[in-house]
Amino acid sequence: MENMKSGQFVLGKEAEVAPNVILGYTYKDWREKLTIGDYPRIHSGSVIYADTTIGHRFTCGHNVTIRAHCQIGDRVVLLHGTTLEGNLKIGKGVKVMANVYIPSNTSIGDMVFIGPGVNILNARLPMRVSGLAKVVIGNHVVIGGGVTIGPGVNIGDNVFIGAGAVVLKDIPSDSLAYGNPARYKPLPEKFGKGNDPEQIFTGLDLWNQVEDDGSWKEEEYPGK
Amino acid sequence: MENMKSGQFVLGKEAEVAPNVILGYTYKDWREKLTIGDYPRIHSGSVIYADTTIGHRFTCGHNVTIRAHCQIGDRVVLLHGTTLEGNLKIGKGVKVMANVYIPSNTSIGDMVFIGPGVNILNARLPMRVSGLAKVVIGNHVVIGGGVTIGPGVNIGDNVFIGAGAVVLKDIPSDSLAYGNPARYKPLPEKFGKGNDPEQIFTGLDLWNQVEDDGSWKEEEYPGK
Amino acid sequence: MENMKSGQFVLGKEAEVAPNVILGYTYKDWREKLTIGDYPRIHSGSVIYADTTIGHRFTCGHNVTIRAHCQIGDRVVLLHGTTLEGNLKIGKGVKVMANVYIPSNTSIGDMVFIGPGVNILNARLPMRVSGLAKVVIGNHVVIGGGVTIGPGVNIGDNVFIGAGAVVLKDIPSDSLAYGNPARYKPLPEKFGKGNDPEQIFTGLDLWNQVEDDGSWKEEEYPGK
Repeated sequence: MENMKSGQFVLGKEAEVAPNVILGYTYKDWREKLTIGDYPRIHSGSVIYADTTIGHRFTCGHNVTIRAHCQIGDRVVLLHGTTLEGNLKIGKGVKVMANVYIPSNTSIGDMVFIGPGVNILNARLPMRVSGLAKVVIGNHVVIGGGVTIGPGVNIGDNVFIGAGAVVLKDIPSDSLAYGNPARYKPLPEKFGKGNDPEQIFTGLDLWNQVEDDGSWKEEEYPGK
Repeated sequence: MENMKSGQFVLGKEAEVAPNVILGYTYKDWREKLTIGDYPRIHSGSVIYADTTIGHRFTCGHNVTIRAHCQIGDRVVLLHGTTLEGNLKIGKGVKVMANVYIPSNTSIGDMVFIGPGVNILNARLPMRVSGLAKVVIGNHVVIGGGVTIGPGVNIGDNVFIGAGAVVLKDIPSDSLAYGNPARYKPLPEKFGKGNDPEQIFTGLDLWNQVEDDGSWKEEEYPGK
Repeated sequence: MENMKSGQFVLGKEAEVAPNVILGYTYKDWREKLTIGDYPRIHSGSVIYADTTIGHRFTCGHNVTIRAHCQIGDRVVLLHGTTLEGNLKIGKGVKVMANVYIPSNTSIGDMVFIGPGVNILNARLPMRVSGLAKVVIGNHVVIGGGVTIGPGVNIGDNVFIGAGAVVLKDIPSDSLAYGNPARYKPLPEKFGKGNDPEQIFTGLDLWNQVEDDGSWKEEEYPGK
């Protein structure tokens, strides 16, 4: 882990960190070391800034960028090429696929899935009018691949957004949204009432290095 | 190539590998070394796992991620920031542009072009219902930039998918697909009957380091 | 900066270059060193080729790829995972967000904003018919996140393109474009007449290391 000496960080127990990772990337006026919980697995090419806090059982793919002042819960997965800009909050049990962009000020609940290539925005008139319009995403949301979520959009709990949708208005809880621009309707019964902890936390992934200990069963996750 | 010593790999002759490349990235239960054929050119920041096999004349851009158990044919090009998840198959003469996501279980034929920012999906109800719905893409397909291809979609031979389309249903051979959600019609005559080996294999790219030897002319490529 | 010794480059004064950066990446037949002006800030994982020229006060995020023969003006910002293929031109005061793909031959004016996940294309029938169809973008343009811009498209001055649009035809100056395929109408008055130098050049970013000197006020930027 020689390559990590320049950074400022505190790792929990049984950390697996690949070569070419930078932990605790510092910047002007940084204050606190990066803190990551137990059992993290962090793959090559990723950089995580100081002043960010991440929970237990964090899985980080390759070439991920996580900037400062992010608060990230337990059992979060972020895949390759994804960027989390700073000053944002992500709950527990959240899985974010590859090449996703999550801007500053975004708030994401618990047990959320975000497909590959999703872009979330935070400015209504970038370069013209100052001020950020943050996106707020509830619990148990599924966002399909290639989706764009416009600035200031609120997405309720248990919302399913179809692949390739362009979401420019708020989506109430228990809805299915789709299309460009996205419309929505009540979530059909076959979609269920929420995401399944079993799907998120147990080892479908060939590359899992650490057996899941099943502790999520005793922890408090929001009911489906 | 000191940076590559930690990996497990076999390279063919006249390999050009840049700094900051990791070849033969290992994981729990890996079995076979990464194998790559002759004349590969692999640019900085890319990582390729063990248990993957790649043919001759492979060109790999910067920050590409290729995971385990991929079978990749001869004369394949993958550009910057693209991810191939594991357990997938790509034929010969395939060109994949930048920031493309290809998930596990996908099958791609020969002589296919995939534009930048394409996302291919493999789960109908991610985090809700288990099981993968693999995408199958035929030969001589052209997929425009920014396209999303939904889970379980089959795309026939000689299909052209317009930029920005969201493809949620099967597309039969010799079709042109476009829009969100994508519709299709018979492929207009001006689109031709297939991709041109001359376009794929000869050196339009300023950065080609190795002259193409023209051997593709004698090899068997699927007729247009 | 030991990691940069293999490259060929000239940096202006007060340069800040992170670890894992490659400057002046060479290729067959390269001619000139990479040249970058004063006060550049270049973050980890990025690679910039020889034969490219970049102006003063350049800000480059993580894992950015900039290939050869790019001409890039002063006060340009490129964020994480963005690719600039070679042989292209970008004016001054341009901000490009994360995971953007800009292909060869593209021409971008001054004071342009490009949102995250934008894909610009340059071939009408890739792999079928040779020849590039370059995209030309005017001054004071705002391109929303997740937008696709098709080959050969011309975009005038002071155009605003809504998030997720798929632009396949030319857009005249002072228009608002949106949808898939994109339509357009005259730009509503509330969008203003151009991008604001104050928004682009002053330090909203938490990670700015160097105070802006306000010199843009005396320089010549195209009027709004």
